[in-house]
Amino acid sequence: MHLSLKQISIIGSTGSIGTQTLDIARAHTDLIQVRGLAAGKNNLPLLCQQIKEFRPALVSVPDDQSCEVVRDFARKEKLTVEVIPGMEGLLALAEDSESQMLVTAVVGFLGVKPTLAAIKKGKTIALANKETMVAAGHLVVELAAKYKATIVPVDSEHSAIFQSLLPSYEKNALEKEVCKLLLTGSGGPFRTWSKEQMEVATISDALKHPNWSMGAKITIDSASLMNKGLEIIEARWLFNLPAEKIEVVIHPQSILHSAVEFVDGSIVGQMGLPDMRLPIHYALFYPNRIHSERVPRLSLAQIRQLNFEEPDLERFPCLTLAREAAACDDSKACVLNGANEIVVDSFLKGEIKFLDIPRNLERVLSEHKPIKTPSLEDILECDQWARQCARLVMTA
Amino acid sequence: MHLSLKQISIIGSTGSIGTQTLDIARAHTDLIQVRGLAAGKNNLPLLCQQIKEFRPALVSVPDDQSCEVVRDFARKEKLTVEVIPGMEGLLALAEDSESQMLVTAVVGFLGVKPTLAAIKKGKTIALANKETMVAAGHLVVELAAKYKATIVPVDSEHSAIFQSLLPSYEKNALEKEVCKLLLTGSGGPFRTWSKEQMEVATISDALKHPNWSMGAKITIDSASLMNKGLEIIEARWLFNLPAEKIEVVIHPQSILHSAVEFVDGSIVGQMGLPDMRLPIHYALFYPNRIHSERVPRLSLAQIRQLNFEEPDLERFPCLTLAREAAACDDSKACVLNGANEIVVDSFLKGEIKFLDIPRNLERVLSEHKPIKTPSLEDILECDQWARQCARLVMTA
Repeated sequence: MHLSLKQISIIGSTGSIGTQTLDIARAHTDLIQVRGLAAGKNNLPLLCQQIKEFRPALVSVPDDQSCEVVRDFARKEKLTVEVIPGMEGLLALAEDSESQMLVTAVVGFLGVKPTLAAIKKGKTIALANKETMVAAGHLVVELAAKYKATIVPVDSEHSAIFQSLLPSYEKNALEKEVCKLLLTGSGGPFRTWSKEQMEVATISDALKHPNWSMGAKITIDSASLMNKGLEIIEARWLFNLPAEKIEVVIHPQSILHSAVEFVDGSIVGQMGLPDMRLPIHYALFYPNRIHSERVPRLSLAQIRQLNFEEPDLERFPCLTLAREAAACDDSKACVLNGANEIVVDSFLKGEIKFLDIPRNLERVLSEHKPIKTPSLEDILECDQWARQCARLVMTA
Repeated sequence: MHLSLKQISIIGSTGSIGTQTLDIARAHTDLIQVRGLAAGKNNLPLLCQQIKEFRPALVSVPDDQSCEVVRDFARKEKLTVEVIPGMEGLLALAEDSESQMLVTAVVGFLGVKPTLAAIKKGKTIALANKETMVAAGHLVVELAAKYKATIVPVDSEHSAIFQSLLPSYEKNALEKEVCKLLLTGSGGPFRTWSKEQMEVATISDALKHPNWSMGAKITIDSASLMNKGLEIIEARWLFNLPAEKIEVVIHPQSILHSAVEFVDGSIVGQMGLPDMRLPIHYALFYPNRIHSERVPRLSLAQIRQLNFEEPDLERFPCLTLAREAAACDDSKACVLNGANEIVVDSFLKGEIKFLDIPRNLERVLSEHKPIKTPSLEDILECDQWARQCARLVMTA
């Protein structure tokens, strides 16, 4: 088994997934070369530092002003780097023929276009951008099949599923051999709360995630189980299996990251400590496994106990909303995702109560006229509509 | 994926694994045809019934007298079947060019020769015979590589490991990609007993296995953890990994059947209810997975809890004896296995106490002059010597 140098580009290099990806690249300079970096304008000093360390050939930042900052830095440090602003820059990274892998580590809709562009080049995508699969899953599946692009998920749950069903995936037999995907979730901070307690939950209650340290929006999604719901939609497209084959199991310790039940009754699952470097590391080196010093090791005997229970759909209606959207295969998933961002933002601002999140989402969904197999334009439009509608129903 | 009819022969068709194998064959007559059956003389009526149902072309029984019984039955039922006695018959089944798979479901040394013969024909072996790997592992590994035979384990633990490391196995990268095998074991009936309690344990105490219903000898081996020890040796050869990469984890519920820790820190494991039809089913259809009606389904939410702990080497010295034998790669494993059969038999007859099992084994091992890379003849000789020596030390 000869491992050659892999050229990667990272969209979202200064975020949580981006910096952890670079942490792994740093430990494996013999195997990974950073060809391109893209980041927002909020942390240009960190981006400049990354450019100095990893010497990418291509860099993208949102606007001309940020471009100048980066170019000045490169001039001063005598670094040769092409800096391209905006979507043009993201697409340049995605389409660049020198790199074999695009790490989509950016949050939100921004990731969709460059991911699709990289897929059209037949690249391997290390995908940490949920929106791409939730909103544009059917487009991704279609294009990936057409251009023979491989999508390796970076979410810990989807990475676990990918690792568990790999033999069936590699012989193109997922539909025949997989009976169920078992998406595990910690249950979030409200797992044991009554509905009455949840009605009066505060922002800081909702932000106390038991196992993972993440951004505010995704932590709220974990508390409402919307995160698990969006993961159902993501899994539906990533593995091209119908929503009814995807089950959620609550597992407070977040050790079994997810599992697959095969048609013969065998369940294969992937375990580890809750650390995002594990799925990032796996995606970077797929299809090989490389020794990691960076990933902390799990000892089952030290953990001692793993628990499992069914999710309570009564207390967590977001899960049902997402499952329904996943079963429809239309623009509903995109609308749910867009509206959820606005509604969660409102909750984080103290404008609505925790259980108003699903209530408002239901209102938005009831207003939506779903589009079957939406185009990329339809998707962008539905997303905009969903955000507007969410604002409207919350002020009505 | 086109599945063609597989011709299989079963050595040990009237035993527990044999009858369960036929139970699965019965449910998949479109995919499995029974080409040969071999059984002992204790249950000839069942063998005759199996011949009537599955119409094998070849049958083997231990002696001429049993041959006559089977031939008479076949004549009466107007069945065309060739009946061959003894080792000649077993080898005929193993070497027969019409079958692609040999299921070695027989207990004890009897399985070694036919298994090696089938390997030389490049067949796939569904291996449920522990002795073959424990005593003759290095021969099996060497021949399987030379004749490109595939060995699919039928033990639930080894099947779990096989399923978990399949992608690395298929690209021939076990040594590079696997960090540790995690063999799980229930801990047996004495898991929570003190050493003092174990000193006075009765035969019926030792026969109370918490999860699996098995024969008396293997149930005692489960109580002493010798079974887990023999599994270390088996795993060492099956996966050709050094003994220090094989770890035992006590897991009282027997749901996680075993797991693999990869070099990147990811742990992949296989789960299911404790039911031997699961690994048998997997082995029969490998490399494909086929829908099973026969295997009961595991629900993690219903099981609710999985526990793990380290084995107590102080109370279970058999584990250390086996680990040492596994690390030596010589005739020690064969001696341990042979002596253990005699010592356990003595315990079952009420002649020695439970903790005398490891004490007597230690005595036998201390008398043994190990042979490096033993031949098949060496192995048979060591086995005989070990049994004699065990009898001697127990009467001394």
